[in-house]
Amino acid sequence: MTNFSKLDARHLDLFREIVGAANVLTDEEALHHYAHDETEDLHYLPEVVLKPNTTEQVSSIMQLCQQESLPVTPRGGGTGLSGGALPQWGGVVLSMERFNKIIAIDERNLQVTVEPGVITEVLQNAVREKGLFYPPDPSSRGSCLIGGNIAENSGGPKAVKYGVVKDYVLNLEVVLPSGAVIWTGANVLKNSTGYNLTQLVVGSEGTLGIVTKIVLRLIPSPKYDLLMLVPFRSAENACAAVSAIFRAGYTPSALEFMERDALEWVTRYVDSSTVKIEEGIQAHLLIEVDGNYTEVLMQEMEGIAAVVAEFDCGDILFAEDHQQKEELWKLRRRVAEAVKANSVYKEEDTVVPRAELPALLKGVKDIGKKYGFHSVCYGHAGDGNLHVNIIRGELSEEQWNGTLKTGIREIFELVKRLGGTISGEHGIGLVQKSYMDVIFDDQHLQIMKQIKQVFDPSNILNRGKIFD
Amino acid sequence: MTNFSKLDARHLDLFREIVGAANVLTDEEALHHYAHDETEDLHYLPEVVLKPNTTEQVSSIMQLCQQESLPVTPRGGGTGLSGGALPQWGGVVLSMERFNKIIAIDERNLQVTVEPGVITEVLQNAVREKGLFYPPDPSSRGSCLIGGNIAENSGGPKAVKYGVVKDYVLNLEVVLPSGAVIWTGANVLKNSTGYNLTQLVVGSEGTLGIVTKIVLRLIPSPKYDLLMLVPFRSAENACAAVSAIFRAGYTPSALEFMERDALEWVTRYVDSSTVKIEEGIQAHLLIEVDGNYTEVLMQEMEGIAAVVAEFDCGDILFAEDHQQKEELWKLRRRVAEAVKANSVYKEEDTVVPRAELPALLKGVKDIGKKYGFHSVCYGHAGDGNLHVNIIRGELSEEQWNGTLKTGIREIFELVKRLGGTISGEHGIGLVQKSYMDVIFDDQHLQIMKQIKQVFDPSNILNRGKIFD
Repeated sequence: MTNFSKLDARHLDLFREIVGAANVLTDEEALHHYAHDETEDLHYLPEVVLKPNTTEQVSSIMQLCQQESLPVTPRGGGTGLSGGALPQWGGVVLSMERFNKIIAIDERNLQVTVEPGVITEVLQNAVREKGLFYPPDPSSRGSCLIGGNIAENSGGPKAVKYGVVKDYVLNLEVVLPSGAVIWTGANVLKNSTGYNLTQLVVGSEGTLGIVTKIVLRLIPSPKYDLLMLVPFRSAENACAAVSAIFRAGYTPSALEFMERDALEWVTRYVDSSTVKIEEGIQAHLLIEVDGNYTEVLMQEMEGIAAVVAEFDCGDILFAEDHQQKEELWKLRRRVAEAVKANSVYKEEDTVVPRAELPALLKGVKDIGKKYGFHSVCYGHAGDGNLHVNIIRGELSEEQWNGTLKTGIREIFELVKRLGGTISGEHGIGLVQKSYMDVIFDDQHLQIMKQIKQVFDPSNILNRGKIFD
Repeated sequence: MTNFSKLDARHLDLFREIVGAANVLTDEEALHHYAHDETEDLHYLPEVVLKPNTTEQVSSIMQLCQQESLPVTPRGGGTGLSGGALPQWGGVVLSMERFNKIIAIDERNLQVTVEPGVITEVLQNAVREKGLFYPPDPSSRGSCLIGGNIAENSGGPKAVKYGVVKDYVLNLEVVLPSGAVIWTGANVLKNSTGYNLTQLVVGSEGTLGIVTKIVLRLIPSPKYDLLMLVPFRSAENACAAVSAIFRAGYTPSALEFMERDALEWVTRYVDSSTVKIEEGIQAHLLIEVDGNYTEVLMQEMEGIAAVVAEFDCGDILFAEDHQQKEELWKLRRRVAEAVKANSVYKEEDTVVPRAELPALLKGVKDIGKKYGFHSVCYGHAGDGNLHVNIIRGELSEEQWNGTLKTGIREIFELVKRLGGTISGEHGIGLVQKSYMDVIFDDQHLQIMKQIKQVFDPSNILNRGKIFD
């Protein structure tokens, strides 16, 4: 149990003074909307939803909540897959959606200062107009917010060449649970000045502070890209081809893996005729290269085609034009939706060193046989990041919410043995925290919990996420 | 004052049991050797130097020192420039030099597992033999140790294209001051599993734990590089050219700035005839591009030459062969030594967003005029990282150790106004900590100090570095 207070009319009046009545939501419909994200079918009702749009307002809210012992759950676009934005204890949902300004695109320094409520794709398009590139690119980029991406240290398909969110964050304005406001770093590319609080906040899932401004580095936009889809007769062979590509000296700008079911379901789901999946094909790799010289890209594609040919692949589909590229990417991006539409499922966000992918995939299937579940796997193979979607199918309630946990634990134990970990880009949130002991011993968890206490001594901010 | 104990004969016996008598040094000569690093002319005698070579030994030493309240100062190659390895309180210097094994080069996953006492250049050469590349490349690479690079989050010339040490560290085995041993992360390219302790330890200057094993990511070695030296009639113009190169879409693999004095002194110091510095030339840029396609590199060099031509540059020297490249790099790498040989000096490791370099350089010179000091500036201009060497010259004792501090503070205040910070790659250590308040307010410093306390509640590990 917690020491949290229940919200009362006085609190609501105080909140209205801070953010204005229009930004204090208490109606049933609103509360239900903010009760879930994209994680399974979980649902936790908040007592109030607040929509501040200035750092000062967030600071005042945090001071009040600290004083009154009210739990606060920060929320971005609500696209999370680990339940990080769910208000498990009721209380306040702090929706950052009105922090939606791109404050400045600094073309001289290749940087952008942005508020956390900007939609990822909106930011990407805005900087692309200046010839600049912000690579982190989650599948939900059309609706997720930059602040949420920072909370989860998101990745996406471009991570394999360009890195994840943490590799682009230079500096953060953060409101601490006390209401104090700090900038975590400086607007520079290298920094050896004290502890790296920037990287401590990135990926901390909204448990250490509320990010209110973000300085990101940008890079020049690559001018061209080429895309190919490679079918394989064996899913393990597809995984094995992944590390062979890198060992041959190529660094694709995307290297995505889809099991047969994933591609088949999404093809049906979006009613696409772009890909015809031949019989006997068990998996596909979607491979992109990018750069500024088309001749070089052609050479790289030929080189990669020669590598994959050694892994018993079928006929390669080279995307012919922009439209076909978009089609192929749409298929990849909407796999998660297609799986969701097909069945209740649980998604495990495993990641291993990339050469261990075949062993991981085989292990997942073996564990599935043992526990009687079917899984559909896809993900960012170039990073060793495999999304394992466990399909409810015909599983009984007892299997689904009981013995399956043991199966998932076995998958994570395998991941650990292979040098990997239990979340590559979705975070731990609410749904994975009971598996943290697979990865971390008690000493390590204690350090994390004490760091949480340094930032949030009253434990009001997103309590119960990552660990209890 | 501190609560530290003095070392006695019993302690020495216990240390001998742990690491063997040969690895417990107490003779005058050894103590003097470990009393300094490369920071100014500072000198602090330890009471004993220990040279463990296993994680278990380090753990036993830390347990004993914690129990007995003995201060511990970890040390790498002793090449530090901020006094991080100086045993300010006497006690134990923990020299990591015998942790000198490259444990495994994993060509399948493009990773290397290495002990912290391996010399940076030795590691680079070992992975290059496998066609792999570890880019962080401090000027001291021939004698600095990987562990020290991690402590300071080192950079070097390649950082501009490839990033700094923090961008290559995947996972660290760390002995905590309690003696507990943790792995901070996993051997993976993306990770959203709890707080990023890996990045908290990188750059923490040996204040949070002792790193005993390191997993680094590697990239394929670029096959070719080209190098040019560009003279400018105005140092500010040279700085202005830097950001113009990036805005034109080029990302050089090195972009170094040297003021006239820097290049002149080092040319004399190493007795080189490679560069003839024309009259009227105030600064040079050393610019490298690398990649796998020579035609592309030629195009890039031409493009960059066209950009710098707009900044009133002199005749460009294009390095003709490997030997000339080596010569030019030797000049750049040995500037620091040459300055040191020329005069007593203090080095300030400023960093700003790169387009602010001209304003920084002008400001440094103006502040110099005001306080009567001469400075020689050089550094990694592509990163906005300028090493400001303040030359003692004819300054009186009162000026050098008195009013100069106010001048340095003004430089740092300027750096802060320009969006930068007070150390790009050398760390804060002992010599910069009195300027931390320029960058961080008290709330922020308190967070850092409390994090220190989480890791090291007895404050025995490198106490007094970064902050008091």
